[in-house]
Amino acid sequence: MSEYVAPLRDIQFVLKELAGLDQVAQLPGYEDATVDLVDAVLDEAAKFAEGVLSPLNIPGDREGAKWSANGSANGDGPGVTMPAGFKEAYALFAESGWTALQSDPEWGGQGLPKLVGAAVTEMWKSANHAFSLCPLLTGGAAEALSLCGSDTLKKTFLEKMTSGVWTGTMNLTEPQAGSDLSAIRSRAEPQADGSFRIFGQKIFITYGDHDMAENIVHLVLARTPTAPEGVKGISMFVVPKFLVNADGSLGARNDAWCVSIEHKLGIHASPTAVMAFGDHGGAVGYLVGEENRGLEYMFIMMNAARFGVGLEGVAACERAYQRARDYARDRIQCVETGVRGGPRVPIIRHPDVRRMLMSMRAHAEATRALAYVVGAAHDVATRHPDTATRRRNQAFVDLMIPVVKGWSTEVGIQVASTGIQVHGGMGFIEETGAAQYLRDARISAIYEGTTGIQANDLIGRKMAREGGATLNALIEEMRALDADLGQASGEHFAAIHRRFAAGVEALAEAGRWIVDTYGVDVRAASAGATPFLMLLGIVAGGWQMARAALIAQAKIDAGDTDPFYQDKIVTARFFADHILSQADGLADCITFGAPGVMALDEDRF
Amino acid sequence: MSEYVAPLRDIQFVLKELAGLDQVAQLPGYEDATVDLVDAVLDEAAKFAEGVLSPLNIPGDREGAKWSANGSANGDGPGVTMPAGFKEAYALFAESGWTALQSDPEWGGQGLPKLVGAAVTEMWKSANHAFSLCPLLTGGAAEALSLCGSDTLKKTFLEKMTSGVWTGTMNLTEPQAGSDLSAIRSRAEPQADGSFRIFGQKIFITYGDHDMAENIVHLVLARTPTAPEGVKGISMFVVPKFLVNADGSLGARNDAWCVSIEHKLGIHASPTAVMAFGDHGGAVGYLVGEENRGLEYMFIMMNAARFGVGLEGVAACERAYQRARDYARDRIQCVETGVRGGPRVPIIRHPDVRRMLMSMRAHAEATRALAYVVGAAHDVATRHPDTATRRRNQAFVDLMIPVVKGWSTEVGIQVASTGIQVHGGMGFIEETGAAQYLRDARISAIYEGTTGIQANDLIGRKMAREGGATLNALIEEMRALDADLGQASGEHFAAIHRRFAAGVEALAEAGRWIVDTYGVDVRAASAGATPFLMLLGIVAGGWQMARAALIAQAKIDAGDTDPFYQDKIVTARFFADHILSQADGLADCITFGAPGVMALDEDRF
Repeated sequence: MSEYVAPLRDIQFVLKELAGLDQVAQLPGYEDATVDLVDAVLDEAAKFAEGVLSPLNIPGDREGAKWSANGSANGDGPGVTMPAGFKEAYALFAESGWTALQSDPEWGGQGLPKLVGAAVTEMWKSANHAFSLCPLLTGGAAEALSLCGSDTLKKTFLEKMTSGVWTGTMNLTEPQAGSDLSAIRSRAEPQADGSFRIFGQKIFITYGDHDMAENIVHLVLARTPTAPEGVKGISMFVVPKFLVNADGSLGARNDAWCVSIEHKLGIHASPTAVMAFGDHGGAVGYLVGEENRGLEYMFIMMNAARFGVGLEGVAACERAYQRARDYARDRIQCVETGVRGGPRVPIIRHPDVRRMLMSMRAHAEATRALAYVVGAAHDVATRHPDTATRRRNQAFVDLMIPVVKGWSTEVGIQVASTGIQVHGGMGFIEETGAAQYLRDARISAIYEGTTGIQANDLIGRKMAREGGATLNALIEEMRALDADLGQASGEHFAAIHRRFAAGVEALAEAGRWIVDTYGVDVRAASAGATPFLMLLGIVAGGWQMARAALIAQAKIDAGDTDPFYQDKIVTARFFADHILSQADGLADCITFGAPGVMALDEDRF
Repeated sequence: MSEYVAPLRDIQFVLKELAGLDQVAQLPGYEDATVDLVDAVLDEAAKFAEGVLSPLNIPGDREGAKWSANGSANGDGPGVTMPAGFKEAYALFAESGWTALQSDPEWGGQGLPKLVGAAVTEMWKSANHAFSLCPLLTGGAAEALSLCGSDTLKKTFLEKMTSGVWTGTMNLTEPQAGSDLSAIRSRAEPQADGSFRIFGQKIFITYGDHDMAENIVHLVLARTPTAPEGVKGISMFVVPKFLVNADGSLGARNDAWCVSIEHKLGIHASPTAVMAFGDHGGAVGYLVGEENRGLEYMFIMMNAARFGVGLEGVAACERAYQRARDYARDRIQCVETGVRGGPRVPIIRHPDVRRMLMSMRAHAEATRALAYVVGAAHDVATRHPDTATRRRNQAFVDLMIPVVKGWSTEVGIQVASTGIQVHGGMGFIEETGAAQYLRDARISAIYEGTTGIQANDLIGRKMAREGGATLNALIEEMRALDADLGQASGEHFAAIHRRFAAGVEALAEAGRWIVDTYGVDVRAASAGATPFLMLLGIVAGGWQMARAALIAQAKIDAGDTDPFYQDKIVTARFFADHILSQADGLADCITFGAPGVMALDEDRF
């Protein structure tokens, strides 16, 4: 059994060398994010992840969150009891200021950049995926309230959510309204005092109830009586578990109850609630912003949440890699390949095991690099004084969020599955822990929008709508890097250059086809959406790995003897030959594959 | 919730059109396997799978096999109780003659070809993976006894194993001896009466104990006192749970006990036993065949078992496909892509969902076709009167067993995971059933030799040792088919031809590289072993899909209006554009990828 060790060396390399932490620290409001401060934050986060969250990961999975008819934290009705240790860990998490890391200083937050938040979030997620969802959702809900809520709402809720004394949720899904939020039926009836009464059932509500915080602030999508049909008739409401008195103290229990939780493949310690609003007269809710703009507001937190879920892919790769590597070092089995009669060796010596480990490692590094670079671009897009710079970065972020979400999480599943494989039969035994990573990682490609939803968002809103402009700018940037690669010497760079050049051209060709086809035959374009998302992920991941390799070579050339840099170059080379090599096939399946997708009659499946 | 429906139409097409059931039925001893008889067998098997085994699949997973200190079927010590319904289902299974289907008529078997057995086994595995393992192991143990055991052993055990009154197991693995059987330490001490006393612990013993049969016949690998080190010192012993009296009745309880079972990711209803032999004085065992030839004998049953496990990949694809398809037809979500304000439609209308379903379907059909064709070749290799024909077919079987095992099971995992994805959030909820398919399928790429073990067997014993002769013959056969494809008309065949031709050449190039490299740098070759296994699987699967498409077109040209044939062509086309398109990338990662696999120092992981 191996516990998580935060990969601080690679995290710091990506922050400083690839994502430009020093530029981010020059943005207005981020001046405190000095290298020293960030190093200290990362060290503390690593200690917390390793020492507090990781040891709870397996016990939390085994015990699971438990619902009971009288399980509410206050014993006043149905509710959820968290696994042993989670309440104490959450209290320590909040006290240590981790809930406030990226929040607005106005409400007690530390206001650190998203780039730093990304690194810290990755650690929480590697250490304990199930635990990490509670602060993720709280942060998203607070961000939506902060951007769209009235001053009263902000004053009432944000300080407590920032300090973590209260947590938050997103209540979107209903049984008939999953990916299709236009089908939402929950009702909001206006009251004389300006508040609303909310009625309806919501499902799949992460941390919809638990016993770790004094109050839970539900953001709920519902329709007012005069709302138009479809997505333009959805409003957002704050529905706290306990009403809040004028002095900020907790008042009456609201009519918002967790009536059951789901029995899931993974993230057993994260309660997935069925929430009943208004079964006993109506849940008191307060409108956020304007009526009928709820979906727009929800997308604010959704984009943040999608980025956060993308980090789950990075985290799954890293954690599965660490455990598989540790096992492969310890497990003695068979003599070395090609050696007769030699001693038995650790399985890390066997080429196929090493191939699996390299694939896991390369995916962890590539997904991390891409996610952090997008995180930094978000910071620039939010804070940079120059409008054009902000816009350019925002366009890049908008393009890449579905890729960070979709690609990283799909890869996270594959890597977690490979991690089981490295263990052989032991991987299938639950006590080993490797299987939990697959079970937990599996949800990341589904919630906050499935990979298919991300892919259609990518090719539609993020590419076709603007004629592929942002993608083309990105491709130009990649081509410029490829020219640098062509100048680098050595067989590793020759391999990286060869594969990256081919990958970029495959991406360019497929991107052109998607943009050209979208307006003519949107179904054909959509048939290639997910392969295109994967292609963009692979090439963008390869781009970051190639950048990293060039930077590493420059360090070596400058006399730096840290072996980290040579490792980075060989890992980039592995990524090129083994992962970037898929690019042509993906491009072909996009540009030629649509007829095969659509040719079978629906009733012949 | 959807129950399994046996895909009889495709099974029959593959049996008759691709695998040559009529030729198999002309082989000596198989004359009874007429089309009518086989159709009747398939119909009955479908009824049993659908009506008896499939309904127990989810309850069996939920309840699981249970070990207790006094759980032996006879209440005489520790043992395993099966989930409700399994004992009755197994009794009916045995009574109906399913355990005897492929067995030697001398012991009461029906002696049907492996080709027919493959189709029936696929159904058991789709309907209830966990249940299917008991007869799979029994069949393998009986086969080994039948080929290697003394007349006395055969007479004592084979009739009861054939009728299913007794079941069988394979006891290979020990904690320190997983993939590496040379490390086995279990001891066998010779007794004056010619029997042995067996001492040792075995782990991962599938159906090592259960309450469904009167006796369990363990085949156990152990070392005699004079045995040489390594694999050449391993002998095989029969160790029955209950000793057998001279009249065939059950005698004393043997000193072979299941001391615990594993808590696993999947196949919860299949007890995975830790077996203790000889803790109470020694377990009575009988030598099978000659001393020190145990590994050789075990490989007889291992090859059969590997083929059977390969069918688990087919079965996982089929079952996951069926459930996802049913869900996609029922689940209404979002308007049709490209239609504004239209009605909400079943998600099967959405191109990305259809892409996933086509991928699942194409993989089910391709893995099935390849496995059955290999099964038929086994029958020819075993029974054909002509020596050269037998040899040629045996070489093909030997080459393809690791591919049927490795590729089909890897694909089964991917497809089961895709099945979850089609369900969106519901896929993550255990009650839906889709998650169980992934949990169950995950083991298939591990037991009976991991994919890496299969891949190294493929490139070493099956290719390099003979200079690639069998592979090259196969490639020539593929090229001949490709010439036929070039003559076929229509866009679907143009696409299939284009991709298949490229795939075959990629395979040829990579195969040449593997054979050339193996003798020079075995570690480099081994680094490409698994990608090569996947490449061969993809191209061989594409070969069968292309054969199927040409046959289907001939039927259409001859006036057959069964829409099955057009479906087959479009599915083959999907396979070509979406799966065969990966061939070039795989070949590149084999021929260029070894340095990236091996470049990182072991202590730098």
